[in-house]
Amino acid sequence: MEKIGVLTSGGDAPGMNAAIRAVVRAALARGLHVVGIRRGYAGLLAKDMPRLGLKSVTNIVQRSGTVLETRRCQEMYTPEGRARAIENLREEGVEGLVAIGGDGTFRGATLLAAEGGIKVVGIPGTIDNDIYGTDATIGFDTAVNTALEAIDKIRDTAESLERLFFVEVMGRTRGFIALHVGVAGGAEQILIPESEEDVDELCRSLERSFGRGKRSAIVVVAEGDEAGGAIGIARRVASCLKTESRVCILGHVQRGGSPTARDRILASKLGVAAVAALAEGRDGCMVGEVEGRIVHTPLHETWEKTKELDPSLLDLMKVLAT
Amino acid sequence: MEKIGVLTSGGDAPGMNAAIRAVVRAALARGLHVVGIRRGYAGLLAKDMPRLGLKSVTNIVQRSGTVLETRRCQEMYTPEGRARAIENLREEGVEGLVAIGGDGTFRGATLLAAEGGIKVVGIPGTIDNDIYGTDATIGFDTAVNTALEAIDKIRDTAESLERLFFVEVMGRTRGFIALHVGVAGGAEQILIPESEEDVDELCRSLERSFGRGKRSAIVVVAEGDEAGGAIGIARRVASCLKTESRVCILGHVQRGGSPTARDRILASKLGVAAVAALAEGRDGCMVGEVEGRIVHTPLHETWEKTKELDPSLLDLMKVLAT
Amino acid sequence: MEKIGVLTSGGDAPGMNAAIRAVVRAALARGLHVVGIRRGYAGLLAKDMPRLGLKSVTNIVQRSGTVLETRRCQEMYTPEGRARAIENLREEGVEGLVAIGGDGTFRGATLLAAEGGIKVVGIPGTIDNDIYGTDATIGFDTAVNTALEAIDKIRDTAESLERLFFVEVMGRTRGFIALHVGVAGGAEQILIPESEEDVDELCRSLERSFGRGKRSAIVVVAEGDEAGGAIGIARRVASCLKTESRVCILGHVQRGGSPTARDRILASKLGVAAVAALAEGRDGCMVGEVEGRIVHTPLHETWEKTKELDPSLLDLMKVLAT
Amino acid sequence: MEKIGVLTSGGDAPGMNAAIRAVVRAALARGLHVVGIRRGYAGLLAKDMPRLGLKSVTNIVQRSGTVLETRRCQEMYTPEGRARAIENLREEGVEGLVAIGGDGTFRGATLLAAEGGIKVVGIPGTIDNDIYGTDATIGFDTAVNTALEAIDKIRDTAESLERLFFVEVMGRTRGFIALHVGVAGGAEQILIPESEEDVDELCRSLERSFGRGKRSAIVVVAEGDEAGGAIGIARRVASCLKTESRVCILGHVQRGGSPTARDRILASKLGVAAVAALAEGRDGCMVGEVEGRIVHTPLHETWEKTKELDPSLLDLMKVLAT
Repeated sequence: MEKIGVLTSGGDAPGMNAAIRAVVRAALARGLHVVGIRRGYAGLLAKDMPRLGLKSVTNIVQRSGTVLETRRCQEMYTPEGRARAIENLREEGVEGLVAIGGDGTFRGATLLAAEGGIKVVGIPGTIDNDIYGTDATIGFDTAVNTALEAIDKIRDTAESLERLFFVEVMGRTRGFIALHVGVAGGAEQILIPESEEDVDELCRSLERSFGRGKRSAIVVVAEGDEAGGAIGIARRVASCLKTESRVCILGHVQRGGSPTARDRILASKLGVAAVAALAEGRDGCMVGEVEGRIVHTPLHETWEKTKELDPSLLDLMKVLAT
Repeated sequence: MEKIGVLTSGGDAPGMNAAIRAVVRAALARGLHVVGIRRGYAGLLAKDMPRLGLKSVTNIVQRSGTVLETRRCQEMYTPEGRARAIENLREEGVEGLVAIGGDGTFRGATLLAAEGGIKVVGIPGTIDNDIYGTDATIGFDTAVNTALEAIDKIRDTAESLERLFFVEVMGRTRGFIALHVGVAGGAEQILIPESEEDVDELCRSLERSFGRGKRSAIVVVAEGDEAGGAIGIARRVASCLKTESRVCILGHVQRGGSPTARDRILASKLGVAAVAALAEGRDGCMVGEVEGRIVHTPLHETWEKTKELDPSLLDLMKVLAT
Repeated sequence: MEKIGVLTSGGDAPGMNAAIRAVVRAALARGLHVVGIRRGYAGLLAKDMPRLGLKSVTNIVQRSGTVLETRRCQEMYTPEGRARAIENLREEGVEGLVAIGGDGTFRGATLLAAEGGIKVVGIPGTIDNDIYGTDATIGFDTAVNTALEAIDKIRDTAESLERLFFVEVMGRTRGFIALHVGVAGGAEQILIPESEEDVDELCRSLERSFGRGKRSAIVVVAEGDEAGGAIGIARRVASCLKTESRVCILGHVQRGGSPTARDRILASKLGVAAVAALAEGRDGCMVGEVEGRIVHTPLHETWEKTKELDPSLLDLMKVLAT
Repeated sequence: MEKIGVLTSGGDAPGMNAAIRAVVRAALARGLHVVGIRRGYAGLLAKDMPRLGLKSVTNIVQRSGTVLETRRCQEMYTPEGRARAIENLREEGVEGLVAIGGDGTFRGATLLAAEGGIKVVGIPGTIDNDIYGTDATIGFDTAVNTALEAIDKIRDTAESLERLFFVEVMGRTRGFIALHVGVAGGAEQILIPESEEDVDELCRSLERSFGRGKRSAIVVVAEGDEAGGAIGIARRVASCLKTESRVCILGHVQRGGSPTARDRILASKLGVAAVAALAEGRDGCMVGEVEGRIVHTPLHETWEKTKELDPSLLDLMKVLAT
């Protein structure tokens, strides 16, 4: 293998740039050439893939977003689109591809690998942490800390006039962010898609808290919770408890910000590991970190298998949110 | 005058503690005794007013919220309530009162002063900056910087997949926070209660921006904008432009956080000035800072007169948001 | 066991309050009484140990420092001192002790346990991460992120006039902070007590960097590096390379700040685990987290055995700092 | 006038990019062309001055440093150097120059204006705030808040083991940063170049503080204080008081970080004002903001006249640091 490509795709996540930097430096250290495919799969189709050298990745380790950008690209889901992508890669002499992103990114890469004989290695980059095969995805730690700062600021004021706060965090289908933020932020309740608490139960629990003398309560809601978004839940709880409530929806704020140390170190490790995997002839796998060690997982398993929430955190919530 | 009281009331604001500290230290330096009235006017009625010494205000200059706490208190709006408050102050020997808060705080203090012969000086503490008689209120600078951080984080990700972001900031009746955050954050549009832009006009303006090649746009919306909250506006714009949009509602996050240098310095100046005003025999006024100088404004003017938005910022928006 | 005590001792670390909160809530949930021993071992001798209830630990999860405070206490290193401490604990009916801190804290606790028949469980709380038996100590993640922010700010300006920056971080005998910060911050060089790089070697390496076109370089120095503190090293390098250099000494800034999500979650887990350990009859051990699981290590091993630096990070430095 | 140039020179300051953005957008709005002169005066000599359009300044308002970079350039201090610079500007058709920086930047610009018939307007950009003709320079508010965060973190830990902390902030000849940080951070003492406190006096004052029961004290030292840097002073005080002390040297950390709202708004106003000044035919002046209004000051006055420290802050220190 003499030349590899690297792309970011899907929603961006803090730490993607640290991963790009690690891929480029590790590849150059092995004597490989690297091209950066801009705007995800769109750049593959447009053949927008400049050569990357040491200087291309100077001073980006701390930056949020992705210097390679990312776009939606429907064409990659057509056989014609993929045929063109494969041809472009061949013309450019690219034999291996590092794809940084989530679920959708990996599905696209798998199709490319199957149809085009391109070797593909994935790096999990998404704030949602919903990818099997790694304890944490790149961007998760930053997103949790960003949401935590918001909760701390609400807590500053929570002893004052208002009593009841709802904070909606990201997580359409999974409650990783909500669970970690809720435990770290000392939230009174967490609503996540994985559990079936209903609003009545929530109301009774909050009443017990206020009855024991709590001045205020913070409820963290994952955007995908089946009871509905924070605004709807807040309205129902407020009407049930006959108290005002306040809502904060963090939204894409959680996607930004300079990555934490942990996200940068994870991104650096996985970037180096992805290049090593390609150099060793691996293919169709994702590099992840499990219990401190680099692990290779077949790409299709990353979305077919379900990553479990940390059960010890669910237990902690019960003890600590008293 | 031998003894004064200090209270915080209404919504809390970052920097209130720095003001309390300055009041206490300035009073002690003049040989006055100080009591801290806890939970705003509620503490007056409950006679919850401990003596404050030098140590009471150690290590609070940097803390958000208010160590004296604040509550709602309907009783103060009855003659009986106020009669009791006045009696409590007399029994305690409190001859002067420093009231830190906003509009409602000053109205309550004015009634007390009129009915009870207590000398009252107000300090403007509210994130909304909607008080006549001071260029900035305590907490405003912190709230603006907090909202700005959120916009910066959205901007980090704004070059990626999504195009259109709405950020709702505080300001039920006035657009101070929205205007300052919008200019500082480089927002494409700002919707404030003071101006009558309609959603159609907003859509055409955004279309022009996208037409000129902008990848994304951030619209700052004051919660009190007449076009409705950010969620409603976002829905209408998204349907008109046939594009997805994302909403962030910052809510009470803007009320928390350690105060900025500017808020702490302003709070310190006004705290010292309030004590000086009482010592000089002033009464029924608010201390503020206008063009760098301490100014005394009759309390009733602070809510009767309207503070104007900085017209130079409105001009800046037009030039810079191109 | 009916009553336990909890204390913090030694240098404070962000997350200690989250640990105290977890100990108290977990103990109350098991029907145990809890006293908080104030000012470390000094409070044991002064019998300053108030009862802690649910409200005692409300709203402290996000606060830095330790609400129980910590002091130096030479008397605990005398047999008489310890005899008095043990008597005080007995009189108070305290049968188990949770000691939060580092090396010195655990040595003191071990002597107490040996001489007094008090059951002791340790929780590792120190920013230095130099304790065997846990992958991370409470406070380490926060300290690394604090130092990282400083490096990011220097990097902002590093492309401007100046070329050569030295940043001294904490770590008298171990380079954990320096290594993690260096990798995450993209430092050009890291000097740690564990490795024997000399200043000449450092100069040659920096010359190569500048020769390849780098505009600037950041060198992270652990305060305990054998080549001396950052100021001395900077002077020697600047004179050797005939270039100006700038020094930043972060000092105790690294001990403060609101704890990160990771530190709070770790502290919460270990607080609950420590109470469980006492309830299960364990004694003379420290609770730690290794590869995601709670582990119990005999207290004396925590200082007798040496915790290794992560070798994969040392490798990363070589690849990435090119 | 049809074409103007903009450059940044000297030490960079947070907010310079916001000023560049405002200059470019204001110029384009007036139908002027703009070139960005890269690396300060060095780019003038190398004729490195690309055309800037709307997109050149997209997404930079929040970034620290300067996208135009800055370098040292001795050649500009020779008549030959300046002759070449003037010729380059003429060849390029640049008739007006906006120079963003401090003292040295303005001196260079004044020589250019005098010798070359180029119209020059300055914008004050330096964290030191030591320029006459504006209440604040661009970057000052950010630097003060950055140093304040460091002091807050030290304060978090200051109630623990250690007692005496020295924090060295920037300010070789002037104490603006030290004074504002000291007041805002609640420092016990401030040492600034403008005042002649000696170390003996400092020791006595600290002894009085500790005597009154203070657990710890923070002393802010401007790097240029005549008593020497923080390390030397700390050593002398520690030996005099027979107590340990800790030192933090913030250094270039204060030059980085995303600019505060205030710095961005000031930069935006001054950028627009500078273009207006050139368009109105003004020359050889600096635009500043004094008491909320735009003011034009002859460039030579900006370094010949001395800007005074705010005397009300010096008074505040005396009252509040008791």
